[in-house]
Amino acid sequence: MTYKEAAAYLRAHDRYLILSHVRPDGDTVGCAAGLCRALRQAGKTAYVLENPELTTPYAPYFAPYLAPAGYEPGCVVAVDAAAPGMLPGNADAYRDRIGLAIDHHPSHRAYAEHTLVDASCAACGEIIYALCRELTGITAEIALPLYVAISTDTGCFRYGNTTANAHRVAAALMETGIDTAAANKKHFRTKSKKRMYLEMALMENMEFFREGRIAVASVTLALMERLGATEDDADDLAGFPGQIEGVLCAVTLRELTDGRCRISLRTSAGWVDANKVCALLGGGGHAAAAGATVPGAAADGRRAVLEAIDQILDS
Amino acid sequence: MTYKEAAAYLRAHDRYLILSHVRPDGDTVGCAAGLCRALRQAGKTAYVLENPELTTPYAPYFAPYLAPAGYEPGCVVAVDAAAPGMLPGNADAYRDRIGLAIDHHPSHRAYAEHTLVDASCAACGEIIYALCRELTGITAEIALPLYVAISTDTGCFRYGNTTANAHRVAAALMETGIDTAAANKKHFRTKSKKRMYLEMALMENMEFFREGRIAVASVTLALMERLGATEDDADDLAGFPGQIEGVLCAVTLRELTDGRCRISLRTSAGWVDANKVCALLGGGGHAAAAGATVPGAAADGRRAVLEAIDQILDS
Repeated sequence: MTYKEAAAYLRAHDRYLILSHVRPDGDTVGCAAGLCRALRQAGKTAYVLENPELTTPYAPYFAPYLAPAGYEPGCVVAVDAAAPGMLPGNADAYRDRIGLAIDHHPSHRAYAEHTLVDASCAACGEIIYALCRELTGITAEIALPLYVAISTDTGCFRYGNTTANAHRVAAALMETGIDTAAANKKHFRTKSKKRMYLEMALMENMEFFREGRIAVASVTLALMERLGATEDDADDLAGFPGQIEGVLCAVTLRELTDGRCRISLRTSAGWVDANKVCALLGGGGHAAAAGATVPGAAADGRRAVLEAIDQILDS
Repeated sequence: MTYKEAAAYLRAHDRYLILSHVRPDGDTVGCAAGLCRALRQAGKTAYVLENPELTTPYAPYFAPYLAPAGYEPGCVVAVDAAAPGMLPGNADAYRDRIGLAIDHHPSHRAYAEHTLVDASCAACGEIIYALCRELTGITAEIALPLYVAISTDTGCFRYGNTTANAHRVAAALMETGIDTAAANKKHFRTKSKKRMYLEMALMENMEFFREGRIAVASVTLALMERLGATEDDADDLAGFPGQIEGVLCAVTLRELTDGRCRISLRTSAGWVDANKVCALLGGGGHAAAAGATVPGAAADGRRAVLEAIDQILDS
């Protein structure tokens, strides 16, 4: 669908239920909340489906829009979900009747009746912004979650996916008078004490290989327990080792309670292809960011990933 | 001067020397480099005056434009300097013959023959962008330093000073094809190992007061020596304690080699006025960010600033 067709589709239907993806990030949460608000402003009934994995910082964006028990939707819309497998378990009942999927992932599999994918967008929030503008005026209530969508998906405009359009949309959203400084402070500049202590511990146990180009941080179950750290505290640690000067390949090892170890790779400057490394371990992703899950503890994960990196670098 | 008048002034003169301010940040460096390049593109002879305190990450922006020994300027321009006292010592010879001062500080003292001040701008780089657009086309060589000016002065669009215009200018600069991701990685996402260890040590020695609302980090001479840390490593630490959840008043104490202690305060949400606290200690600044220098070691600085905070909170 084109933007115009998708806007016409949204104007033509009613009783919306909006689905977000598993391990919800700011983009899927902000898109769902912003679109829901815009549909309501356009005179529609609209709700978002509760997301069981929603973390504390994002909960307030969903709070005004949560679907009541027994809500029977007339039209189901999925935002920022590249495949049906990315929808949470409580969305199972709606999986086969998604009217419109709106997404920016190039890997999007067309699983909905209609699809609007624009892979040129850094964040799905940019697409929702364009649709909301077609549907209704952009008010502060729409603008704040959409700003959060775009800013979190671009690391507050720091990452390589940031586009001129992302900046231009941010400018338009700011002009509604939203408090972006407060949102940025919450999402980018505030860490729990436990998170700070966790980062300290990771720095303490960080191991370096290949003249400091590879850094490995281990988040063990013992460490999490010692600090009394929660999932919130350990969220989004994959980039942590990569901020150290000279590191081209950042590895984060996360011990899971089921006896496996989750490996996250972040690489820069094309030194080693993260996707190829993780493919050797049964995982995958992009050249600059990929992951895999292997059996064993952090020490086993480290051995496996270092061997895989060696194999790719030596090939 | 208006923007149009300033652009006409720059077109009317030649043999430029551009001055930046002491403790140079990305804004003054980026403005000087971007303006220098634009003047050259407009057919002028233009150089920047060496800045003795230029730190390693910013040195490459100045490298192509450094004035040769014995260069005799026809027109001196100062960028991002609110007062003549903000110019470095090697600018003394030009201090009384500055033709144009371009600045965004509301506190600007008109010390130059002509002045262009626009305090609505988050960064002086936004003003230089508008001038360069009048003078010549914006090329990638102009755009990169100006992007660095705007991104560093806004904490990569995170701080409360960020405006819609800052985003809009960033979008226009990006469209010249500059590698903003590499610049952001360098200026916002890379820390030396010593910096990481310094932050770890600060977190370890951090003290909390008033139910965690006040956090105090001490950068002692002993700590700097133990880590072998340099000025580069200890740059811009004032915000560090403020990122901890619940902290409303962040205090950083920096022991100086002359037996004094530099106090930096960053406060949020209007809980305590940093400027009033620091005024009690002979310093000053803004409500959200201020500083003072007191005699003694870090322990003396801590006692002094906690007493001053008490006095302001209890008044």
